[in-house]
Amino acid sequence: MEVFYSNNIRNGRAELSEEESRHCAKVLRHRVGDKVWLSGGDGNLYECRVEEDNPRRVVLSIVSVVDNPDPREYHLCMAVAPTKNIDRFEWFIEKAVEIGVDRIVPLCCAHSERKVFNAERGRRIAVSAAKQSLKGTVPQVDEMTAFKEFMQEASAFPGRKFIAYCDEEIVSGGEDSRVCLQAAAAMVAEPAPAEDLRRGAIFLIGPEGDFSSEEIRLARQCGFVPLSLGPSRLRTETAALLCVTSLYLSECCHDTSL
Amino acid sequence: MEVFYSNNIRNGRAELSEEESRHCAKVLRHRVGDKVWLSGGDGNLYECRVEEDNPRRVVLSIVSVVDNPDPREYHLCMAVAPTKNIDRFEWFIEKAVEIGVDRIVPLCCAHSERKVFNAERGRRIAVSAAKQSLKGTVPQVDEMTAFKEFMQEASAFPGRKFIAYCDEEIVSGGEDSRVCLQAAAAMVAEPAPAEDLRRGAIFLIGPEGDFSSEEIRLARQCGFVPLSLGPSRLRTETAALLCVTSLYLSECCHDTSL
Repeated sequence: MEVFYSNNIRNGRAELSEEESRHCAKVLRHRVGDKVWLSGGDGNLYECRVEEDNPRRVVLSIVSVVDNPDPREYHLCMAVAPTKNIDRFEWFIEKAVEIGVDRIVPLCCAHSERKVFNAERGRRIAVSAAKQSLKGTVPQVDEMTAFKEFMQEASAFPGRKFIAYCDEEIVSGGEDSRVCLQAAAAMVAEPAPAEDLRRGAIFLIGPEGDFSSEEIRLARQCGFVPLSLGPSRLRTETAALLCVTSLYLSECCHDTSL
Repeated sequence: MEVFYSNNIRNGRAELSEEESRHCAKVLRHRVGDKVWLSGGDGNLYECRVEEDNPRRVVLSIVSVVDNPDPREYHLCMAVAPTKNIDRFEWFIEKAVEIGVDRIVPLCCAHSERKVFNAERGRRIAVSAAKQSLKGTVPQVDEMTAFKEFMQEASAFPGRKFIAYCDEEIVSGGEDSRVCLQAAAAMVAEPAPAEDLRRGAIFLIGPEGDFSSEEIRLARQCGFVPLSLGPSRLRTETAALLCVTSLYLSECCHDTSL
């Protein structure tokens, strides 16, 4: 089943963008009366009927709402330094959206080899992955954000906050002060004391050259807890996906009735 | 630290292949006396000294053995139908090796859109990822294998066996007869009754068009248990990586001292 995306929904009708219209009416040749699915960006997935098949402006009417296509009960923000080879970071965006994420913040760090990021391209990948995996929402993809700037925002965040880094000596505390990823996922399952109803988490993943000691110090001051990802030496994008996967597994894969 | 690969080790000396020699002596300009690391393909990672820097034939002497670079205590075989877009499957090979896998079997299924697979290229990706992630062994990458042929081998396998598929109606039993991935990982943690000392698991992941009903029936006859990967609709390569990750998380990420 083909899924289209539009957040332009009013009075039970949705209008597709020019790009989506072209894909719907020209590439896939949908005609008036055809049934298609729509990801509304509002958490819902809709069953729709094509009302106008103009390849520049397709209009759909909503037939029914598909229940709860993404039953995650946590809000996950992944703040990750984009990789030097941008394919690797874009791959992360796709996979994170498929599995389940709410916001991706590309971080510009002291040791970042990549200082620019095409957020528009990142958003297109997110839309495409959300449609492919039948998600009712498209995660937010931020513009490249300086590490310090993100810390200012994140220090007030009431949910769980974790930072993964390699250097064990860099900040005192030693290895035994880290929480492992399984324990972190369990912490996310319980709301933090200051949190609202929906549980939330932020994970920080550094660039190939790791976070600087100053960044690690600042993050810890802002309430980020050091995280261990286990014994394998992982690339940036693999480490980031491991975090996304661990929450998904602990929250969404424990019920045999799914 | 740069890691090279050679399984040609004798009397404390290792000879690199022509390709690895070129990379070592020509691209990275290592000279006699330099310290490098070697993945021996035998489970060990070695600290070595360059003894001959001929760009066609580099010889290393082993200085010391690095302990237990990959402490996984399970043997994981992923039998996965290669994707139509081969990049996606090759990406899976890289990520699975980074996280931890022992054997990858490219499966040719009834609904496979891809019938050929360049195993030599797959092996090069596995070697590269094993070096990158400091693994002492390089996972086996098989030639394309027909589903039925693999079933003949797998039916005698004494460890845990799982099959993931989408169609819920296709084989009786219904949804509630599936085990979730978290439960599957817990089963792998306990040796199966007929198993030897090392615990083992096989996961079957089908092509974009899913396994055929005949394949599902055959797999279940051979002892494969239906597996649920949770509510997200995942691409073939994402589903396969989820299985690899779930075992890694449950076995290697539960100890805060790591």
